[in-house]
Amino acid sequence: MQTTFTCPTHGAGLYEITRQIAGWVPHGDGILTLLVQHTSCSLLIQENADPEVQSDMQAYFERLVPRSDTPQMAYLRHTYEGPDDMPAHIKAAMLPVSLSIPVQHGALRLGTWQGIYLFEHRDAPHVRKIAAHFRAD
Amino acid sequence: MQTTFTCPTHGAGLYEITRQIAGWVPHGDGILTLLVQHTSCSLLIQENADPEVQSDMQAYFERLVPRSDTPQMAYLRHTYEGPDDMPAHIKAAMLPVSLSIPVQHGALRLGTWQGIYLFEHRDAPHVRKIAAHFRAD
Amino acid sequence: MQTTFTCPTHGAGLYEITRQIAGWVPHGDGILTLLVQHTSCSLLIQENADPEVQSDMQAYFERLVPRSDTPQMAYLRHTYEGPDDMPAHIKAAMLPVSLSIPVQHGALRLGTWQGIYLFEHRDAPHVRKIAAHFRAD
Repeated sequence: MQTTFTCPTHGAGLYEITRQIAGWVPHGDGILTLLVQHTSCSLLIQENADPEVQSDMQAYFERLVPRSDTPQMAYLRHTYEGPDDMPAHIKAAMLPVSLSIPVQHGALRLGTWQGIYLFEHRDAPHVRKIAAHFRAD
Repeated sequence: MQTTFTCPTHGAGLYEITRQIAGWVPHGDGILTLLVQHTSCSLLIQENADPEVQSDMQAYFERLVPRSDTPQMAYLRHTYEGPDDMPAHIKAAMLPVSLSIPVQHGALRLGTWQGIYLFEHRDAPHVRKIAAHFRAD
Repeated sequence: MQTTFTCPTHGAGLYEITRQIAGWVPHGDGILTLLVQHTSCSLLIQENADPEVQSDMQAYFERLVPRSDTPQMAYLRHTYEGPDDMPAHIKAAMLPVSLSIPVQHGALRLGTWQGIYLFEHRDAPHVRKIAAHFRAD
């Protein structure tokens, strides 16, 4: 059983998709697999309680991987798609591209504070696609 | 076939859980999926030969993601749970939350030097939970 | 259905293995799981269009995790296998060790620009092994 989720984004940041995904999973036990079909955004399981976790997360990775028009990133060569492009590829390498989540009685076995996010790394609006597969036991 | 592993931790560092997990996998072929149910610790497959690899690993990530009471992290806002909290969330984003491991003849198909670890990022003791799912072929 | 892919490497960098893997997947639907059986190289899904993305990616991680004979890494203790060894373990922790990829009608559900790479972190030549598992629905 497969589908494709779409997630419209309007700038860098975390977009929660937990409800959309949980609603698709059928009753029963099995494994859910998600794969984001892009190289400049990520999947992330992170805390969904305090929104400051999400803005802090984004602020940290912006500093860890500065834009390609900053002096410390002057060595980058893949720059013609904009100063946010190569840093987006680097963040997409460091953060998850695929997730596997056990399902029991139709519920994702996430922890109490865990939510699933699409982490957008680009400035411009995008419509992101996530390939999803569920296999019942 | 599903279970939950627990791993008590007493401070930041790597805790090997390979034996506990390998002992649960039944004879036969299939796929093992692990998901850590927290947002401030990680799963890690790393070298299990020289313990200095594990302490060096922890030392590196402590420097890469300094505590929130250090000057270079003054921009963080999610700080009320302690200076080790937001850095723990960031490390949990950078390191694996889920692992998928092929199983053949009842054995995890790990390489010779690979062990499975719970990587604790918090200072205080915790009892960490890992959702596990095995699907026979 | 399981196999082991091998990927010979000659120095740090990205080696594309998409074709080798896609050619093994049988017709039908299911899930492909890959696990690299080493602790000093990684699996990576990244852009396969512009080769500068791959050299920039390598350049970034070389700077993020400098060699153990540089002043800023003087705290590392696992150094007897060479200055590229412990940094390779750290990169292997930060980048994926396992990937799960949905398969539909015999095709990997990768995005248009996504390729699968073995990311070698060591200087010396190696023959890297990747455990692969395919489960038809």
